[in-house]
Amino acid sequence: MSFAELDHLCRRLEAIRHAQAMLGVDEAVNMPEGGGEKRAEAMSVIAAMAHEMASAPHIAEWIAKAETEDLDQDQKAAVAEFKRGYINRTCLTSEFVARQVSASMRCEQLWRLLRARNDWTDFLPSFENVVALAREEAQRRAEVLKLSPYDAMVEQYDPGSRVADIARVFADLKAFLKCFIPEALDAQARRRARHPRKPFNGPFPIEKQKALGLELMNAVGFDFNHGRLDVSHHPFCGGVPSDVRMTTRYRADEFLSSLMGILHETGHGLYEQNLPHDLAHWPSTSARGMAMHESQSLFQEMQLSRRPEFWRFALPRAREILGLEDVSVEDLLSHVHHVERGLIRVDADEATYPLHVILRFEIEQELVTGQLAPKDVPEVWNAKMQDDLGLSTAGNYKDGPMQDVHWPSGAIGYFPSYTLGAMMAAQQWAAVERAIPDAAEQVARGDFSAINGWRKTNIWSKASRFSTPEIMIQATGEALNARYFEDHLKRRYLN
Amino acid sequence: MSFAELDHLCRRLEAIRHAQAMLGVDEAVNMPEGGGEKRAEAMSVIAAMAHEMASAPHIAEWIAKAETEDLDQDQKAAVAEFKRGYINRTCLTSEFVARQVSASMRCEQLWRLLRARNDWTDFLPSFENVVALAREEAQRRAEVLKLSPYDAMVEQYDPGSRVADIARVFADLKAFLKCFIPEALDAQARRRARHPRKPFNGPFPIEKQKALGLELMNAVGFDFNHGRLDVSHHPFCGGVPSDVRMTTRYRADEFLSSLMGILHETGHGLYEQNLPHDLAHWPSTSARGMAMHESQSLFQEMQLSRRPEFWRFALPRAREILGLEDVSVEDLLSHVHHVERGLIRVDADEATYPLHVILRFEIEQELVTGQLAPKDVPEVWNAKMQDDLGLSTAGNYKDGPMQDVHWPSGAIGYFPSYTLGAMMAAQQWAAVERAIPDAAEQVARGDFSAINGWRKTNIWSKASRFSTPEIMIQATGEALNARYFEDHLKRRYLN
Repeated sequence: MSFAELDHLCRRLEAIRHAQAMLGVDEAVNMPEGGGEKRAEAMSVIAAMAHEMASAPHIAEWIAKAETEDLDQDQKAAVAEFKRGYINRTCLTSEFVARQVSASMRCEQLWRLLRARNDWTDFLPSFENVVALAREEAQRRAEVLKLSPYDAMVEQYDPGSRVADIARVFADLKAFLKCFIPEALDAQARRRARHPRKPFNGPFPIEKQKALGLELMNAVGFDFNHGRLDVSHHPFCGGVPSDVRMTTRYRADEFLSSLMGILHETGHGLYEQNLPHDLAHWPSTSARGMAMHESQSLFQEMQLSRRPEFWRFALPRAREILGLEDVSVEDLLSHVHHVERGLIRVDADEATYPLHVILRFEIEQELVTGQLAPKDVPEVWNAKMQDDLGLSTAGNYKDGPMQDVHWPSGAIGYFPSYTLGAMMAAQQWAAVERAIPDAAEQVARGDFSAINGWRKTNIWSKASRFSTPEIMIQATGEALNARYFEDHLKRRYLN
Repeated sequence: MSFAELDHLCRRLEAIRHAQAMLGVDEAVNMPEGGGEKRAEAMSVIAAMAHEMASAPHIAEWIAKAETEDLDQDQKAAVAEFKRGYINRTCLTSEFVARQVSASMRCEQLWRLLRARNDWTDFLPSFENVVALAREEAQRRAEVLKLSPYDAMVEQYDPGSRVADIARVFADLKAFLKCFIPEALDAQARRRARHPRKPFNGPFPIEKQKALGLELMNAVGFDFNHGRLDVSHHPFCGGVPSDVRMTTRYRADEFLSSLMGILHETGHGLYEQNLPHDLAHWPSTSARGMAMHESQSLFQEMQLSRRPEFWRFALPRAREILGLEDVSVEDLLSHVHHVERGLIRVDADEATYPLHVILRFEIEQELVTGQLAPKDVPEVWNAKMQDDLGLSTAGNYKDGPMQDVHWPSGAIGYFPSYTLGAMMAAQQWAAVERAIPDAAEQVARGDFSAINGWRKTNIWSKASRFSTPEIMIQATGEALNARYFEDHLKRRYLN
């Protein structure tokens, strides 16, 4: 009956996660500022309760007993995934977690203040503290998980992916991109000479942008009976699988950044909406880590919605709703396929983005192992930016190592997910085209049913019953291979 | 250190209440329909967890120990109020509560279906079951609380109020109203002969109605840094004191029902926003029961916002925002002071409303004690309606005893709160006018600062540190007395 006890616990934890998710959405979308203090208090108390419930020592016995019980395959997978989470939760003492939360909250607060002032010197002591604790965390996790320290950190965001494999595909991709980007920029210059890039004629009323966004969300398969679109300062996809809450933000002078953001988040939303409903309270039916999640948003955005065929379908709709009389598909693509070297990761296009990620992957790896001291990060950062993108960040900390919230908040091991997701999405699209030879033509007709059917069978329904590499092999027939993403970039940008 | 343990528990319970409140608001305001099933599941699991945490047997020892500790006055009041709640929570077994929840959920579902069909016969067996369980509940509570069974039920909604006292003021009020209503209707007919009631010329765009509502909420003291106004099917005031979420609904052809509803809910909202911040996680700092809460909404609506002086201030604002060119204060008052006998409680005006409540009070008292059988309710209801309001409900169950959700959902003892609140509000206003002789003139200037100051000192800051009757005596110098409400009605309607 220990499966039953775990089942009861999972129902409670699911209810708490539901509350946490919705409180988070409400905070970003609706909450007046004065509600923030009590909201933060409530969320921290609830998080502590949930952690305590999910990490209680007697659970180890329930798991051990459940493993000996007569369970079906889904139940076995549920127990196995619960056990994986339990081991990861309990390998840090609560004393250590409390110390770490306090250090990273302090560092993140300082970061918000000091980034604006480009003040690395005052930021460094707090950052050193966070890195020291991350090293300790990695060490503790590594011992329990029998992994290398950085592997143990990556495991938190992308279960089953190993640093040696990531390093191999990243090295391949980096070598490719250093040749590819100059070629892509040349090709772009030639295209622009033939067909100059025109700005769109705004303004674009927000109600109309919203109408277009909702229509395209609906067209690509988002279920509005189980979700909605709101506005928040930072766009996100939150909520729960039965009620997915997406957000965007609008500018009246420009519509593409909001619209592409909506389509990106819709990829996350479709994944959540199409997770299995059976045993939905067990972690085995949750989405599989950050890399897989990002593969779904980037599949939606990069593989589907920045595809020329998508705009053959979507431009007439955009034209009718927003009034874009003189805009051709080619005009539109000149915006959504624009490549440019820059300092800021979140502003980067899909071709240069991986270089930003690989730089961070290389640096954080050495930070965790201790080969690199936090104080030396700016110098290494600048050297790599010069080498990878030909840009300098000397003395420019705010657009260099101080640009992201991840490290100050203690999230080391997260960055690889972005580019793993991009590569996985390209590899998934290649598999879709093998299974559905006219997939691109279906996109041009606005028909996403077969493509979503493939995704549901091969990705969404797998949830967390397998590791990320296992799901990729099952879905695409091979392990992650940078070639698909490279081929995708060549097709899109070298013409 | 048992106070410390209770303090820790209260922080956890506060965080859960915060989540429950916000999930409830989100469900009514934002949730897509398909999210309902999982939301209901999450809320029921969280409610069970909260009940389990708040009713655990070891808490009795903590309370007993805390009572012997060296505490200040606020801490003592906190422990006393926590103990009161603990006794009320633990006097029913969880087996009984489960049976009761299931019976009342079933009855409420049937009620939704059968009320529309005016089908008393099919409704009766389920209702009999709910009443039987209510009798059992009342009996169990009565034994523990050393109260009469119906007193023990009223105690759940209005702590400290006793049925003998309620019966006395209700008898006084009922006798008054049976003479007063014909007089008020005559006076109204005379006024209408002199000054016919004109309909307003709509439509009234919803954005403009909202702007007026927000402006008046702000004018009467609602703090938008700690709250907001949304739209829902049934208007309510929810959320938490630091973040009060009010709702309304709009019709384009009419603005007064929404606006008066907003002002009513603002009364609830001001009470919540002005509760004490110290020990805010303890129940002693929560609002004091349903009657006191209703006194605050009715003070805002009936005593302040249906007052002629209010419209001297508000009409120019309404005129500017909604464009009510030909509307005078007298025109407006002919709408907000309209008296009419009717069958439906929620549609009743302030003069006839108490008769609806007293009828229910008389019936539910006999239902709980067993003097009246559920099957005989329609007959008694009809007889009382004939006697009190001269209206028949013979065979008309849906506008008779099937009109309210309270009894089917098991809420017996709740109804008196509405009219107690109306009487308390009138008595509070009389006390305000003694303390601030020009209070009505301040209303006419749109200046609510002194009046709100009085309310904060005498009502809001008292929270649950005293019983409802105690707070009334402290605030107004005497126990609840129907005379103030009667005088208020005479002043307003007999001219």
